[in-house]
Amino acid sequence: MLTLDKVYHAAFVLKDVVRETSLIPSPKISKKNNVFLKTENLQVTGSFKVRGAGYMISQLTDEEKARGVIACSAGNHAQGVALASQKYGIKSIICLPDGAPISKVEATKSYGAEVVMVKGVYDDAYKHALKLRDEMGYTFVHPFDDDNVIAGQGTIGLEILNEMKNIDAVVVPIGGGGLISGIAYVVKHLNPNVKVYGVQAAGAPSMFNSVKDGKIERLKSVSTIADGIAVKEPGANTFELCSKYVDEIFTVTEDEISSAILALIEQHKMIAEGAGAVSVAAVMADKIPMEGKNVVCVISGGNIDVTILSRVIERGLLNSGRTCNLCIELMDKPGQLQTVSTIIAALGANVISVHHERASETADINGCFLRLVLETRNYEHIEKIRGALVEEGFRLVD
Amino acid sequence: MLTLDKVYHAAFVLKDVVRETSLIPSPKISKKNNVFLKTENLQVTGSFKVRGAGYMISQLTDEEKARGVIACSAGNHAQGVALASQKYGIKSIICLPDGAPISKVEATKSYGAEVVMVKGVYDDAYKHALKLRDEMGYTFVHPFDDDNVIAGQGTIGLEILNEMKNIDAVVVPIGGGGLISGIAYVVKHLNPNVKVYGVQAAGAPSMFNSVKDGKIERLKSVSTIADGIAVKEPGANTFELCSKYVDEIFTVTEDEISSAILALIEQHKMIAEGAGAVSVAAVMADKIPMEGKNVVCVISGGNIDVTILSRVIERGLLNSGRTCNLCIELMDKPGQLQTVSTIIAALGANVISVHHERASETADINGCFLRLVLETRNYEHIEKIRGALVEEGFRLVD
Repeated sequence: MLTLDKVYHAAFVLKDVVRETSLIPSPKISKKNNVFLKTENLQVTGSFKVRGAGYMISQLTDEEKARGVIACSAGNHAQGVALASQKYGIKSIICLPDGAPISKVEATKSYGAEVVMVKGVYDDAYKHALKLRDEMGYTFVHPFDDDNVIAGQGTIGLEILNEMKNIDAVVVPIGGGGLISGIAYVVKHLNPNVKVYGVQAAGAPSMFNSVKDGKIERLKSVSTIADGIAVKEPGANTFELCSKYVDEIFTVTEDEISSAILALIEQHKMIAEGAGAVSVAAVMADKIPMEGKNVVCVISGGNIDVTILSRVIERGLLNSGRTCNLCIELMDKPGQLQTVSTIIAALGANVISVHHERASETADINGCFLRLVLETRNYEHIEKIRGALVEEGFRLVD
Repeated sequence: MLTLDKVYHAAFVLKDVVRETSLIPSPKISKKNNVFLKTENLQVTGSFKVRGAGYMISQLTDEEKARGVIACSAGNHAQGVALASQKYGIKSIICLPDGAPISKVEATKSYGAEVVMVKGVYDDAYKHALKLRDEMGYTFVHPFDDDNVIAGQGTIGLEILNEMKNIDAVVVPIGGGGLISGIAYVVKHLNPNVKVYGVQAAGAPSMFNSVKDGKIERLKSVSTIADGIAVKEPGANTFELCSKYVDEIFTVTEDEISSAILALIEQHKMIAEGAGAVSVAAVMADKIPMEGKNVVCVISGGNIDVTILSRVIERGLLNSGRTCNLCIELMDKPGQLQTVSTIIAALGANVISVHHERASETADINGCFLRLVLETRNYEHIEKIRGALVEEGFRLVD
């Protein structure tokens, strides 16, 4: 059973395994509230998962420890289990679907885990993990629906309350619900006045739907860049804890998540993965029903694939009017490019890329297209540039 | 004159302006030493510069404060001066060359500075700033060659020694030399056994050359992605302090800097700018003459343009064998693409992009080129893939 004492015990046990992460003021994220970031993306292994896995593993019997543990995950949970096992000197086996990104596989191996690649998708890897557990006597480490795992995540709640007395709300990402269950349990027991808000990706609203309908519901499919919280079904324990202790759950869109990731990069030089940034996304999108309050956003993790990171940055820049793609139809005669570039330069935009192509089925046979990517200040700036080009007689193609 | 008392005073004065940044263990950066990161990239404004500017500005007379301050910078110094001025409620003017990136201009404005765009390059902006100073009576805030500025940067040395008793070396980026002068002065006075190493970009080795030759030397030009330390000439004070207190200065290449930025992103979810990452680059490239020691790398800042960031990530992935570009000559007949993709899939590489082009002056008229970008594990993995393709009879074009 989850108790406050268990969470205090976890905090004590985890001292040698995890870092006490900083609470960083973030004055520009919101105009309405004073935002602080609990930076679990800067946790060892790059996410909070090592807390729950670490405490759960520490509480195994000597016999269980001697046999080792097994988990199924392509992400943060795998790395958390691997590192915690390494710290306690026990064997860990991680089952992964064979399509898992190389970077995550390598990171998991680097923490000393034995990686088993399973043909198929997550569910196949999960079945294989259970099979190995039964055959070999390994202990299965659940990613969220386990009291000790939840107690480990709850230590984040203790750290937040310990560092800052006058907080009004905590905003927490929800996947399976282990993180928010632990934090909400601690916060509501120690200071029931503090609001606890959960955030899910709109493309994977399993806890949102379940709590709304008052029963556990399973999503047919999930789709979001926040892969760390793309969970089809909440756990039995976490569903109960969320129903009881979480004040409200919000969802955020993919564009809101991208903009939050970009804001954290630019304003804080920190990388959050999609799942880690949903709390900030909810605040930036003004979902939190508060004003003038002290709001802590938990950034749960930072393990984002660097190739995805580049795409997210690009998307975030587009969404905030910081870059703009223009396609201009030109007549194929001298001087046109010069006219365009003069207009753009006069308005203070930087040209990032130029692509000039002749002919196409839809254009005038003498026409051509000039595709530009510009670095701009904001949407207003973009509208000025578009306006000036149209005024000069150019046709903009969208 | 620089004194220890001045640094202690600065630490006291700056309490309301700056954050005490974390010292984060970085177990994977080096196999030889135990590395810790002093994360000034997570400082307010994203760099240490606010410390020096803040202390310098705090020590102005009331009359000077009433008139305001002026600085010339396209980067971290501008934001440091702007924020510090805002905190002390005084006016700040920042002169910028008109080619400065929009993102930096906007960031500087967002901290409340009045931005003056000057036609030309840095030197033109600098001259204009001095002219405005003379005309308007503003106080000029030097980016590095000033005792109070150096004392402010020295507070980083106090924080490091305070947080960790048993350190053996501090590794510090050098541009103009203000940061390392402050840190070295403090460290060598409080614990002379600690080594202080400086790092410059190989494309801007002004302090490196000057200290080596025993006199201040000016570089004709500088070229590096580490724009924050692309300084042509050290200051008179900083040259003297570095000559006296710095044990050795190393240089690092652009590729070493890119790899360090990528390592910080992947291992620590943090963004360092080029200048901020040179300390880590020096450790990763095994420049530090130590083994089994506790080494602190100062990450001086994280203000890197996001468009440059994407390019650096790409470069870092290439340099570490994590992506690879292949150009394969194919005969223009069915089944070729399938054969290639079968080989690649069997060896476990992910295809990121495919570009297929027909004809070219150098190729067989029936041939075509297949350009692939692959996600790979390391150089060994790449060699295996190349070997398998050649064995199957394909010609690789470099």
